[in-house]
This record gives sequence, structure tokens and C-alpha cells, in this order.
Amino acid sequence: MHDPLWTFFHPRGVAVLGASANPTKLSYGVLHNLVAHGYSGPIYPVNPKGGEIMGLPVYTSIADVPDPVDLAIIVLPAGQVAGALEDCGRRGIRHAILMASGFGELGREGKAQEERLCQVARQYGIRFLGPNCVGVLDTYAPIDTTFIRTMPKRGSIGLVSHSGAVCGGVIDGASGVGVGFSRIISLGNQADIDIADALDSLAADPHTRVVAAYVEGLPNGCRFVEAARRLTARKPLVVLKAGRTPGGSRAVASHTGALAGANEAFLAACRRAGAIPVETLEEMVDAVVALAFRSPLAGPHIAILTNAGGPAAIGADQLDRHGMHLVDLSPQTQARLQNVCPPGTMTGNPVDMLGGPQAEHYTAALQVLLDAPEVDGVMVIFVPQAITPLHDVAVVVGQVGEMAPKPVVCSIFGGSGIRAAARALHAHSVPYYPTPCRAAFGLGVLWKYTCIRETHIPEPEPLADVDWAQVHALLAGKAGILDPQAGAEIIAACGLSVPPSGLAASADEAAALADRMGYPVVLKRVAPSLVHKSDADGVVLGLQTADEVREAFARAIRSGERALIQRMAPSGGLEVIVGAHRDAQFGPLVMVGLGGVYVEVLRDVAFRLAPLSRGEARGMLEEIALGRLLAGVRGLPPRDTEAVVDALFRVGWLMVECPPIAEVDLNPLIVGERGAWAVDVRMVIR
Amino acid sequence: MHDPLWTFFHPRGVAVLGASANPTKLSYGVLHNLVAHGYSGPIYPVNPKGGEIMGLPVYTSIADVPDPVDLAIIVLPAGQVAGALEDCGRRGIRHAILMASGFGELGREGKAQEERLCQVARQYGIRFLGPNCVGVLDTYAPIDTTFIRTMPKRGSIGLVSHSGAVCGGVIDGASGVGVGFSRIISLGNQADIDIADALDSLAADPHTRVVAAYVEGLPNGCRFVEAARRLTARKPLVVLKAGRTPGGSRAVASHTGALAGANEAFLAACRRAGAIPVETLEEMVDAVVALAFRSPLAGPHIAILTNAGGPAAIGADQLDRHGMHLVDLSPQTQARLQNVCPPGTMTGNPVDMLGGPQAEHYTAALQVLLDAPEVDGVMVIFVPQAITPLHDVAVVVGQVGEMAPKPVVCSIFGGSGIRAAARALHAHSVPYYPTPCRAAFGLGVLWKYTCIRETHIPEPEPLADVDWAQVHALLAGKAGILDPQAGAEIIAACGLSVPPSGLAASADEAAALADRMGYPVVLKRVAPSLVHKSDADGVVLGLQTADEVREAFARAIRSGERALIQRMAPSGGLEVIVGAHRDAQFGPLVMVGLGGVYVEVLRDVAFRLAPLSRGEARGMLEEIALGRLLAGVRGLPPRDTEAVVDALFRVGWLMVECPPIAEVDLNPLIVGERGAWAVDVRMVIR
Repeated sequence: MHDPLWTFFHPRGVAVLGASANPTKLSYGVLHNLVAHGYSGPIYPVNPKGGEIMGLPVYTSIADVPDPVDLAIIVLPAGQVAGALEDCGRRGIRHAILMASGFGELGREGKAQEERLCQVARQYGIRFLGPNCVGVLDTYAPIDTTFIRTMPKRGSIGLVSHSGAVCGGVIDGASGVGVGFSRIISLGNQADIDIADALDSLAADPHTRVVAAYVEGLPNGCRFVEAARRLTARKPLVVLKAGRTPGGSRAVASHTGALAGANEAFLAACRRAGAIPVETLEEMVDAVVALAFRSPLAGPHIAILTNAGGPAAIGADQLDRHGMHLVDLSPQTQARLQNVCPPGTMTGNPVDMLGGPQAEHYTAALQVLLDAPEVDGVMVIFVPQAITPLHDVAVVVGQVGEMAPKPVVCSIFGGSGIRAAARALHAHSVPYYPTPCRAAFGLGVLWKYTCIRETHIPEPEPLADVDWAQVHALLAGKAGILDPQAGAEIIAACGLSVPPSGLAASADEAAALADRMGYPVVLKRVAPSLVHKSDADGVVLGLQTADEVREAFARAIRSGERALIQRMAPSGGLEVIVGAHRDAQFGPLVMVGLGGVYVEVLRDVAFRLAPLSRGEARGMLEEIALGRLLAGVRGLPPRDTEAVVDALFRVGWLMVECPPIAEVDLNPLIVGERGAWAVDVRMVIR
Repeated sequence: MHDPLWTFFHPRGVAVLGASANPTKLSYGVLHNLVAHGYSGPIYPVNPKGGEIMGLPVYTSIADVPDPVDLAIIVLPAGQVAGALEDCGRRGIRHAILMASGFGELGREGKAQEERLCQVARQYGIRFLGPNCVGVLDTYAPIDTTFIRTMPKRGSIGLVSHSGAVCGGVIDGASGVGVGFSRIISLGNQADIDIADALDSLAADPHTRVVAAYVEGLPNGCRFVEAARRLTARKPLVVLKAGRTPGGSRAVASHTGALAGANEAFLAACRRAGAIPVETLEEMVDAVVALAFRSPLAGPHIAILTNAGGPAAIGADQLDRHGMHLVDLSPQTQARLQNVCPPGTMTGNPVDMLGGPQAEHYTAALQVLLDAPEVDGVMVIFVPQAITPLHDVAVVVGQVGEMAPKPVVCSIFGGSGIRAAARALHAHSVPYYPTPCRAAFGLGVLWKYTCIRETHIPEPEPLADVDWAQVHALLAGKAGILDPQAGAEIIAACGLSVPPSGLAASADEAAALADRMGYPVVLKRVAPSLVHKSDADGVVLGLQTADEVREAFARAIRSGERALIQRMAPSGGLEVIVGAHRDAQFGPLVMVGLGGVYVEVLRDVAFRLAPLSRGEARGMLEEIALGRLLAGVRGLPPRDTEAVVDALFRVGWLMVECPPIAEVDLNPLIVGERGAWAVDVRMVIR
């Protein structure tokens, strides 16, 4: 697999424009890290003042820097960056890291400055990271272009982040407990190289086994989804996205100027991408620590080994919350535990060795649990006690856990000397967590990853039986909110069932239409302002004769308005809403839920990116109450679930094939025991 | 307020039975903590071996211990505890702490041993803590009967826990970052002194401003709720309960032998008690740290002051999640910020001082935000950077925050030296959090506490218009599942509207009944096995004539069965379920939700403890979708919400007044525009 950022990690020489000899300046920090953190190629500080920094001669101009030089790190103030980038281009440098802030994140004027950088880059064929970033770090190359104080130890976690501060904070926190990293990529404003390039790079990197992504704006969400899909075919991806709520989105908007997407769209994108979304920074770190050291978790059957009941009970609650549970230990396993545990040990699950176990008890009991066929994974809890050295327990749990083909996580709860114990565990590839709650979360991530692997989302099936030319012809010249008849014709052309219908401008026309299509019919007032027709007495159901139609027309339709006359759908159907709109970041998004008035009150809805496969459509129904109603509950017959699946599948393709359609709502789609009918179509054309 | 545990914290002398000179024994740790952590009264080690420990003479028998001695700490193995307790009783000691495990938590035999302890205690008038506990700690008295290594500093947090390990872990973790405690109470198996006594003690303690409770079983949930209510009238209470899920409950069952309650009952109990429930250990500690150092948070309008955009965006997302939001800063506030912040600062909210603020910038900007009338509270975020000493920022944020009448929380994200910075913040009563996510949670707890204070739950109104003697008469002699007619009569006697109905054993009887009550009527098959009648074609609606009734009887009722004939409720009503059952821990629990087939599929339900006030009943409807449906959504008229409130209120009192009723379901209660009718009553008598 091609690594689009290869040269950033393996430049044959690096120039630092704006290098300073003043140790309180960031530019000094950059040079210091390049030198001190192991980069072995030539380093060329550039500063018009000349002189020498850290024993390196300072060049007064980038033009004077000798070969080889593949990468320029520009640490100059915002106003000087474009000129310096141009100088680099003339010098033949094709890769640059732009650290200055003061560009797109400041608004319109900054955006123009940023566009200028892109022009220069295009002119000279330069790829650049930033602006407003701290560059890259690779512990294996090694290279560190950042000014983050700590060089993390080698590990298997790759981190990509829109925020340099998040990179620094995560590295600082993780390093103290011995968690290693393979690569860090700080994207900043991603004016050129973006999150998709970074994911491709981390997918290609053999040292990276798991990727954490902190993302803010995703102006090209589809590129992100595609790159994430390529990555997750090889390794797990954990994503924390800021700006998912109104408040957070505002904070992001003022920070990077990027558009924040609705949370539903983001979650649908993660699902399509096979990525694991998390809610907080703690969760992001806890998740990648579990995945970095993982053995696969084959099932949700967990054993807890502990020396204290309370923390084990809390851990068990949290296992449940994350979709796992305490397994029933077999009599054989319990007998083996009796042989190796201290007297009084409760060998049910949790296995509670009470107050006095020694390290060797942990060794033996953990081995028994890992050998038990009924156990898929083990949470070890140790509450430090006077008589058992904490570090010894960490070491033995690490030693046993490291050799096991099943995951072991360890929570040491309270006690000083914990950081050393955590390092001991991590040195043996056993994830450490400060509480059983977080240990349960870590196991939960492993279980989620197993489930994601097992339910790989296939590419959507093609939709062959629709004549898209006909659909485009029906759309031609349309704009704004379509009248229901026009919408129904487009939906019918996509292969959905739509009851016969037509528009009538008079009572007689209405009666004639009804006679042609057969009774019973429904009459609906058509006026662009009537978004919710049932609010406004705009619908008259169950008309059985031409006279009833005429009378209803006279009563419901005002002068100058028209009526939609529609054959009634079979009675007794369930009202479902199927809809789609275009998310600013991730493109078309398809929705399904309980229809009618319930959709707004109950919010029983599910979302997926379009196009979606029939399998994904089934998955949508499985995650909401509607799916259970369709399957048939007491007193109600099962409905035609596959007809809803088909409608979702077709609406998904419609949004992909017809970009002018901004929104479509089928509300309700009446779902019978056999078949489903779109009786009201609202479509907005851009 | 009386402190039922006063003597445990202020004994005039303490005897330690089972004191050991071996430093690896827990009993040595107990004596060590008594001596080293400041207890100033006489300490009497007791051990048949005699001798001297830590310079104290060892008594060979408790009988020989001189006065004064108010408290005995018994650190002997389980088998010797009852005898030792009896010796203490004979010696006139009336307070004891029993540390040994091996009692009720082990099952039936242990339970019997524990009952023996209670017998001895009753005989001699002894109050005791435990068994299976670590005793008490008071930093002001001071006294420490535990063997936990650390003596926390003085503070305002009181902690009560069923698990000694949780006490130890929480103290260890909090002490490292300078969080102080007032009192710790370890309850163990609470065979005598229970959580309610502990809460009363902490309520009475003047040094305790906030209480954290870790609870497992609550065999007397009502006592807990009452004590918690007394406490929350004075100070906030945060509760973490283990055993809320099937898995956690199992872990608790094997740990303390206590019955674990359903999560809904626990949450209803917290609501009644005015307590703040939390999900994890981190949340428990984060919550009490916020509350311990709190100024009141008057509103949900928060400002974020930061030197990094990414963490601020994450913090803003989490504010939203916890019911708060970023406030719009006024032009005046923004102008004042421009004057005191570094150039380039974005003075919208979050206030982002970008990469280079010094400590004095934090001082000035924080002061501006605290002075701004639109701001209710401030989250300060600092991501350590080379040029600004982390500790300086912590100190100035602490200094400014300490003097403010609004809450300030501070997140320092990443960086070494963080623990010292956290101690500096805590020394100034400003809560420290390692990430903006947890800082937002801390503010959220303050906001939740404000909301709880504002919506104080009054005692339920009395229910005067029901003749309980008549209800008891209707219940007399009944057992098992009542037939719908009997249930309806009891419900009608409680003042709810029930359509006229009667039982018929033949078609003619059915027709005669229908004639008397008027048409239309419904006919329902009555057979004890028919729990869900609409499943089994057991209901025939809308019968308009005597002939239709006869025909329906013939078709639906099998030989030997009876039919319930019931006048139809007005058509067009909304189907609601109102129900109640008895929780093993918290007593009667009332439920309301969307009725009919929807209740099982949608689970749109709310719970409260009974009896409940009408205000609480309205609160139930406000938290679920049903409330919005009752209020009227487009196309549907508003229904009689107060009739549902009345039904909940009356069912609550019914459960309280009639303990033999185990369960009652009104499903559906048909709610019209005026009035509500219980058309199907299922009642189970114990």
C-alpha cells in the first residue's frame, strides 16, 4: 500500500526556516527535537541572522542550503509563510510543514491567506502539512518535527489529530504509563494534506497496529470515509470528533473554520467506515491502549479475578453496559481455582480471593481462567494491600497475560507506585486501567472491534432496474419543493410502489380522476405552504363515491388551489417514514423511523450514508423499535420488512444518482403485510 | 441534628482486640494508624500473648483493660469474633468495629454467624460496624481505625462505602492530588449500623459539606431514601451503586449476599432522595470534588478560557451533553478581553488565547469572564507549553477562582508536574480535572445540584376522598391474579374512572348486561391464562346490539369461561399504561408509559417511588414522549394530562395503603380530551 506521507517521515535532509537560538521560542524546540530525538539526516537551520545553533551552522537563506533536503519546516510568523514556501519551491523542496497559526481558523481574511499558500504549493508541486500544526513524529524512522517535550517510546499506536495540543496532551499522558506510539501526524488546518492522506499513511505504516484520530472539521467527509474503510480493512480505527453538539460545533467553527456535521451523520460515517467512535479523550486513549496490546476477544464471556468485591461489582456493571457479561465458570474451572487460590476464595465469577492473595495466587488463578474454555477474556483487579507488593502483582499479571491467546486487562485501583506498575503491565502488552470501569470499557472496545470485523459492510448492490434517464427527465427544470404528484412520479420511477394519483383543479376533474383510479380515494390539498398536511385539515380520507369526492373538494380546497386525488393504500398498514438529506460533510444520509406524528415525538430513527446495501438497511431496522413493530408484536401481524428495506435501498441510490435532490421524505410509507406504498412524497430540489 | 455514630469518632478510649506486633498483619496496621494518625485518647492493645507493641503495653484480656474505653476494634478471625464481642459487652464496651470477613457475604452459614453477632449486640446494647469493614476515619477528631496506608488531609468530603477497598482506592487516588476528606465510614456487611445511620452521621457532621456513597445492597431501601432526604436537605449526596445490571448484581450477590435492585428503582430512589446518581468511580470522585469546592452555579451559561482550540471544542461538546452551553459573550466583555489578552486572541466563546499566553493573561482574562454578568461559570483549559510554567497557571487560576462567587473548574491537559499543579488548584478550592471532558462533567454536577435544589420534591399530598376500608373489603380473601371485574372494582373504589362492566357466564347474561349499561360495548374473554388478551382474539370491540353481543359470546368464549362485558370508553383516546409493582429494596414503584402494544416495543416509560405527589407525576410525563403526545402534537388534540396525573397519584397511594397488592397494571388507560378510563385492570395479590 502506498504511503502518501512517506517523505515526511523519511526526508534525506530537513531545513528549519525561522530556527532560533532562543530556548523559549517554539522554533528552538523544533530544532531541539529534530536533533535530540534521533533524526539521522542532515539538519539545516535557516535564519537571516546566520550564526550557529546547537552546533549546527545557520544558513542565511534557503537558497544556500546544500543537498540533500526533502523537507522544509517553516516556523516563521503567518505573514512570512507564503514567501518562505515560495523560496522553498524555487530551491526544489517538495515537502513542507507550516506551523504558524493565523490562517483559515481566523475567518475570511485568514482563508484568503491560506488559499495563497495552496496556490504557491500547486505552482511548485509542494505537498504541505498545516498551517497551524506541529508536524510529524515517527519513533521508528526516527524523526520528530514537533516541539512537544516528550519523545514517546516505540509502540504500535498511530495518532492523527487536527489539534496539536491534543497530540501533546495525549503523548504526555500516555508516556508516563509506558504506552508507546509509532507515528503522530498533526494536521492543523489541513489546507493541503488532509485526514484521508494521514489515514492512508498510517494504514501503510507497518509499525502502526491501531490508529487514534482526533478530528474537528471534515470538509470532505466522503474522502475520510473511503480512507477510513481502506484503513479498517487492515487495522482498527478509533475516532473522537469535536463539534458534534451545537456548542462543540461552535467551538470548532471558531477554531478551524471548518463545518461541523450533525452527530447522526458522523455516527453513520463511522459505521460505514468500520471505525469505533468514542465520546471523550479518556475513551480515545483507553480504546487504543486495549487495541494496541490486543489479542482478539472471541466472545463476550468475561471472568473477573479480584482481591476486593466492591470494585469487581462495579466492573461487572460496566461489562454489562458494554455488551459483555460475567460467564458462568464450570465446576471443573472452579475446582481448579480452589486448588490454587487462597482459602476462602469465592470461585464463582467474580473470582474473589478476598484480602490476602499473594502475587503467585494471581499467577495461578489467572492461568486457570485463561485455560477455561468458557472464558473469552479476563479482567484482573487488584486493590493494593499492605502485605502484597503492588509491583509484583503487575509483573505476574503482565507475564501471564502476555503469553495468553485471550485478552487480559488489569485495573489496579488506588495505591502509590501505580505508574510504575502500569509501565510493567504495558511492557508485557497488558493494558492497565486506573479503575475497573475503564478496564471494562477497554474490553468493550475489543468486543466492539470483534463485532465490527464480523459484520463487515459490503459495498451496496447496484440498482439495475431503474431507468435513471427517465428520473433525470422527470427532474429536469424542477426547483424548490415539488408538488406531491411530481414527487410521487419520481419515486415511482425509482421502483417504489405509489398509489395511482393525479392533480385536479376542480371538483369535476377530481371526481373524474377518482372514477378512473377506483375507490376508495383520498383527497389532499396541495399548497406549497402546507408542509404538514394533517395539521391543516388538508386531508380527507376514505372517499367512496364521485359525489363524496366533489363534496370534499368543495369543502377542503380553496380558490386557486389544486387537489391531489389518490387511491387509498390498503388499510391496516403501519406508518413508516423513509427520508434522506445531504449532510454538509458526509453527503447523502438516509433515515428510517416510525412515521406519522410519532416520528417527531418518539425520534425512533436510524441513519446510514447513501448508497447503502440492503444489509445495511436491515441493520437500520434492527436498531430501532420500528424493526420490532414490523416483525410483528402481540396483536399485530408481521409487516413486509423487505419492502421497507427495498425503499431505503432505492432512496439511497436516488440521492447518489440525482445530486439536485436536496431532501426527500416519504411520510408515511404505508407498510402492509405484503408491500409498502409511498402515499405522500415531499421532495426538495436545489 | 443527632449523630448516631458520634462515639465511633470520639471514643474516650479504644481497645484493639487481636493487636499484633507483626508489621505484615492488618491488625498491626490498625494499631499503627490509631497511633500515627493523631488519635489522642488511650489505646489498649489486647492479645493473650501480652508484651508491648509500639511502646504500648498489651493486655492479655479485654477484662483487664482500664477505663476509659468506649470502642473496641476486633481484628480477630471470624470464628473468634462473637466471643470477643461478648467479652466486650461484659466489660461494658458499647461500640465495636468488626473487621473480619467470612460472614453474611459467604451465604447461609455465614449469615447464621452474623445473626449470632447481632444477638450478642442486642444482649449487651452494643452498636457495631461490620463485619467485613475497615471502620472509620475522621480527619478533624482525629481518629483512624482503618489499615489504609494514607491519612488524607482535612477537607469537606464525607465518604461512606460498603466496600473497604473502595475507601482505600478513593483515598489513595484523591490524596495524591490534594483532595481532602472529613470522614470515612466503611460499612461492610452492615449487620447492625447501616447506610442510613452513616448518612445521618455525615449529615450531622459540621465538617462534611458533601457526601459520596458507594453502595451495594440496600436491604432497607426506604430507610436509605429517608436518611438521604434528611441529608440532602443540608448538603449534596452523590451515589454510586453497584449491582444495577444483571452482571453487576450477581457480583454484588456473591459479595455481600445483599439483594440488588433494578436500576429503575434505584434511579427513582435517588430522585426522591434528591441524590445525584453516578455511573463510575471516576464520576463519583469528579462529582464530589466539584461539590466540595463549589460556589453555586446559578445557570447553565459557561465560558471556556483556553490556550488550545481542540481541547476547548471537546469541552464544549461535553458541556452540551451535561445540559449546559457556551454563552454568547457580550461586546463589552469581548472588548475587555481584547484589552487584557495576547494579540490574536479569539474573544468569542471559547476564548482562545492561542499558543502564547502567560500566567498573567490567565489571571486577567479569567477575572473579566467572572465579572461578566452573562457568565455563570468558567472552564479554564491549559495545555502545557514550553514558554509558560504550568504551575504558575495553576496558582493564578486558583487565586482568582478562590475569590469568585461563581464556579471555576480547571483542566490541565497533558504535561508532567500535573499532580503538583492539581494540588495547587485544590489548595485554592478550584477543582482540577485531567481533561476538559471531566471538567465539563464537574460543572454538570454543579448544574444538576442547582436544578435539584430548585425542584425540591414535596411530600405527597394526602388522598382524602378514598374509603380505604371499602378497598380493603374488596381485597379481602383475594389471592393471585384477580379477574378484570374484581380489579376494576378496586380501581373504581380508588376514585379512577372505570367504564361500567360485569361478568357474564352465558350469551343471554351478556346481552342483558349490555342492555343495562348501554351500547356500544366490548366483550372480553376472561381466563386466568390470558395475560395479553389482544394476542388471543379475546377482545371483540364495538358491539352495538344485544344480538351482536350474543354472537360475539358464542364465537369468543369457550365452554366454562366467562365474558367481561364493558361499556366502550369514548373513542379516539390515547392508550396509556399506568402500573405499579414492589421493588425488593425500595418498595412500591409506579410506572407510566405509552400503552397498548407500544409499551413493550418502545419502552417509553418513567418510574417513581410511591406514594408520589401530583408534581412528581407531572414530572414523569415530562421526561417521556408520552407527555408530548398528551400535550397534543400536530393532527392530534391535547388529552387530559391531569387525568393521567390523578391516576398515577391514586395508584401510588393504593400501593402504599394495600401491601397485599403485589402488582397492578392499567393497560390501557384510555385518555380522552376530558377524562381517562381504566378499561383493563390486571392486579396480582400476594
